[in-house]
Amino acid sequence: MDPNHLDKNQDETHYLKENISVVFVEPESPGNIGFLARAMKNFGIYKLILINPCELEKEAYYQASHARDVVSNCQIFDSLDEFLEKKEIDFLVGTTGTPGGSYNLSRIPLKPDQLAESLQTNGKIALLFGREGNGLYNEELALCDVSVSIPTHDVYPIMNISHAAAIIFYEIFKNAYNFNVEGLEEASHSEKEYLLSDMDDIIQDIGLPAHKQKVASKVFKNIIGRAFITGREAHTLKGVLRRIKLRMG
Amino acid sequence: MDPNHLDKNQDETHYLKENISVVFVEPESPGNIGFLARAMKNFGIYKLILINPCELEKEAYYQASHARDVVSNCQIFDSLDEFLEKKEIDFLVGTTGTPGGSYNLSRIPLKPDQLAESLQTNGKIALLFGREGNGLYNEELALCDVSVSIPTHDVYPIMNISHAAAIIFYEIFKNAYNFNVEGLEEASHSEKEYLLSDMDDIIQDIGLPAHKQKVASKVFKNIIGRAFITGREAHTLKGVLRRIKLRMG
Repeated sequence: MDPNHLDKNQDETHYLKENISVVFVEPESPGNIGFLARAMKNFGIYKLILINPCELEKEAYYQASHARDVVSNCQIFDSLDEFLEKKEIDFLVGTTGTPGGSYNLSRIPLKPDQLAESLQTNGKIALLFGREGNGLYNEELALCDVSVSIPTHDVYPIMNISHAAAIIFYEIFKNAYNFNVEGLEEASHSEKEYLLSDMDDIIQDIGLPAHKQKVASKVFKNIIGRAFITGREAHTLKGVLRRIKLRMG
Repeated sequence: MDPNHLDKNQDETHYLKENISVVFVEPESPGNIGFLARAMKNFGIYKLILINPCELEKEAYYQASHARDVVSNCQIFDSLDEFLEKKEIDFLVGTTGTPGGSYNLSRIPLKPDQLAESLQTNGKIALLFGREGNGLYNEELALCDVSVSIPTHDVYPIMNISHAAAIIFYEIFKNAYNFNVEGLEEASHSEKEYLLSDMDDIIQDIGLPAHKQKVASKVFKNIIGRAFITGREAHTLKGVLRRIKLRMG
């Protein structure tokens, strides 16, 4: 393939599809397998591995919704060891809802955004999710290169497994793929500069005391910054400001 | 609990508990109500509002797991209007899985992290989640100050509602330290209404064709909505708009 024609976004999508596996250890509920598959496909992840799972009843396919293909293409192993012995994985990530447990303190978990930032590798990655009731065992976490835990409220830190997975996939996707809905591109720096400059002209022309001019200019800049305005919105606003300037003569 | 031992995080927790409501519009499945409640409590959010819901069968309590209290304390309204008429909410956030193009201005969404960053406010916030099948209607999104959408893969962009909610709660929780910054009280609904009305007067006075007037007005409303402007900023902007009006004669 001509490397000059590699589209960056397609490349990243391809990476998610080919290089990331999701390993669900001893799932107890077919519904959760389905929910997990759906969350995977929502973020472009397809490879599902089940370790010693419950029966894949129709509930798994029902909850997967349009990710039935992820469920039907899953690979099943009797044990985690059997899967790891295939040596197809370069980087094993464990997930835990109970960080700061009794296991080795050198394995203090990353947060999902930290994990996503650090996953800049061309290797094959497996994300390991534990049992619904008991999570991953310490021996399983000890096999992992790194563990990840989602910051939650102390009053109820244990998340549903597919919810936790969705958050981790979301952070990985956010990091891997530059989300740009067609036509929703953020206004460029220079588009925003033009807007602020037009607004400054207006502010200077309406008879505000000097110190209030500064404040007004800052307020407008803050608002434009915080609003993440699109190019199209910037264009509309620019038209309005131009006409106000004309109208004020 | 000894109030002397309240630390900063507990204070922020209090904010999540007291100021954020989750509104589930016309839920069709009791299981999803339960999953939503669990995700809420995982991130310290408690106020659940159901609009014209299905029966709260035991499945709702079962899937809520240790968040049964969130389900049993929920408030139920017959319609979204009936809830909004109570005027307890300062800031309405709509969620959508179909962000659409930029011509559909009511749907230009923030990403969850942008929403969380922008939520520097002491106001009462409601997060609106739509029907499992059809999401929120355009008329409902049009009522919102801002909308939020999760970046997903094109191949299957529609997430399970409680998964989408968990991701949004996670981002808000992650950013909770931004809350309650002294002097950043959000502009009230009526302060914002005054601003929009002044801006509309100006827009009508600068000779834009009628259809462009509408677009300009909507763009301004979107920007004010997304920027989470403070009372002080609203005051400054109002002064600027008044002076522009005077200057234009």
